[in-house]
Amino acid sequence: MNIPAIAVHGGSGTIASSINDPIIKKNYLDALQEALEAGFSLLKSDGTALEAVTKAVTVLEDCELFNAGKGSVFTSKGDHEMDAAIMDGKTLGAGAVAGIKGIKNPVLFADDIMKNTPFVFLAGSEAMEYARRQEYEFMPDSYFFTELRYDQWTSLRGTGEVKLDHSSENGHKFGTVGAVAVDSGGNLAAATSTGGMTNKAWGRVGDSPLIGAGTYANNETCAVSCTGHGEYFIRGVVAYDVSCLMEYGGMSLEQAANEAIFKRLKKLGGEGGLIAVDAQGNICLPFNTEGMYRGLKNNMQTMTQIL
Amino acid sequence: MNIPAIAVHGGSGTIASSINDPIIKKNYLDALQEALEAGFSLLKSDGTALEAVTKAVTVLEDCELFNAGKGSVFTSKGDHEMDAAIMDGKTLGAGAVAGIKGIKNPVLFADDIMKNTPFVFLAGSEAMEYARRQEYEFMPDSYFFTELRYDQWTSLRGTGEVKLDHSSENGHKFGTVGAVAVDSGGNLAAATSTGGMTNKAWGRVGDSPLIGAGTYANNETCAVSCTGHGEYFIRGVVAYDVSCLMEYGGMSLEQAANEAIFKRLKKLGGEGGLIAVDAQGNICLPFNTEGMYRGLKNNMQTMTQIL
Repeated sequence: MNIPAIAVHGGSGTIASSINDPIIKKNYLDALQEALEAGFSLLKSDGTALEAVTKAVTVLEDCELFNAGKGSVFTSKGDHEMDAAIMDGKTLGAGAVAGIKGIKNPVLFADDIMKNTPFVFLAGSEAMEYARRQEYEFMPDSYFFTELRYDQWTSLRGTGEVKLDHSSENGHKFGTVGAVAVDSGGNLAAATSTGGMTNKAWGRVGDSPLIGAGTYANNETCAVSCTGHGEYFIRGVVAYDVSCLMEYGGMSLEQAANEAIFKRLKKLGGEGGLIAVDAQGNICLPFNTEGMYRGLKNNMQTMTQIL
Repeated sequence: MNIPAIAVHGGSGTIASSINDPIIKKNYLDALQEALEAGFSLLKSDGTALEAVTKAVTVLEDCELFNAGKGSVFTSKGDHEMDAAIMDGKTLGAGAVAGIKGIKNPVLFADDIMKNTPFVFLAGSEAMEYARRQEYEFMPDSYFFTELRYDQWTSLRGTGEVKLDHSSENGHKFGTVGAVAVDSGGNLAAATSTGGMTNKAWGRVGDSPLIGAGTYANNETCAVSCTGHGEYFIRGVVAYDVSCLMEYGGMSLEQAANEAIFKRLKKLGGEGGLIAVDAQGNICLPFNTEGMYRGLKNNMQTMTQIL
């Protein structure tokens, strides 16, 4: 047993060569570290796994380097649509939002849906009507404006092309952030948040807000947050697949997570990765892409890595 | 082997006492029968499982008795929002829509997304922008107006209450339609469609359009379409759970479907049922509510039933 523990990710994919710039690399690693520290310090002071993943994802949403919250990519209309989900492994309670706009921290909205409504999943402009009744922190469009994301968008605008989180300088990256944690009581939780695809249209929803696809947590098995080409994660029901491989297939966390990413997702033709933790504090961070922005922290070690 | 085969459902829950009226009962059973015949005749003439479930669900969407397509319930705004999903067990391809309006057959929209876009899931008003570019059959609001649904809505309007598909005369019913089929080649498919909850607001999305929750198909295991209290089916990832209980747990279709509905869903506190078929043509129709509008057809038998 090595609990409490937390892991985070900031997306997977082909990593831009600019990451070889030591300053750029340090910025990413520092951001992951900050999210880990924020979540872990809650876990050390008797915070729950749910509180820790919420906090860690909030930190990543507030960082403009990652495609979630502040750093969300532009849609075809030049605005920002965000998705998020959270799941509590103790109760199997869950909350999720898709296609929301202007809210600083989508993960807090998902958490609120889980805790304060009879629903799990709210989507689109009508979900915003609910949000406006609550006391969310709304931000002006300018908050979500970043030079990098704007440049990515203008290179695609009008072409009809849709990219996950891509520019020739930036590599081919599946932009998502997520966190999984186990607290001192052995409770698990997972949360995922994303700004979707650059130049996306038509209300496309990826795997991030879908319970079982991009996000899942169950105290009996594991907590999982995925990052990758969302359509394949939906078709593979990847997050729940890891749980089922453990519960019904008798696999360890490591076996199950590796099976899901290197065999089953690969067979479908899908690219991406996931972070997973079990109740004993085992952590597994598999990905079948060039890299994955990731990190983990427990009482023994702190690690952040990209390639 | 008893293939081809098809099964359909038209929702589960507490069945209104009006069903004791032989004319009303006959109307429901005839509608289920019509959907079965339409799907099965395709299967008999070398149609695919995918074509059969699409056709059967289309018939149910066109029938005003069920909460999908024409018979969709009213939202809090007095309009109709529909969700649908389809999955092809041969390719694990999938398509889904949520929160769409005015389209006669949402299942055809889901099918189109699966076949003609790189996406799986489109939602809300922006999904409608895609639909308007295609040649869908759009219907005026009057098409979706039915006396029963309007009366259900006016009894709730302004109360803030949200009901699944409910009126005191009509029993407590989880309104959804769905179909699963196996074709002569042993290919599986599943489709589900729903008009959601009466007086619903905030863009609530249930399990029906979520791959793995309300709809799933995989030639290696089974095809599943669920009907019930959607939030529990999402949290339990119920459709994919049946598949995993077979693939990883070594259960038969019947064991897996019963385990999912009578043990795992029940443990969560969830009410509902599902229809499932495997590649050998075994069919299982478990529900933990008073009744489920359901039917099945193969070369040996045709059955339709409510309680």
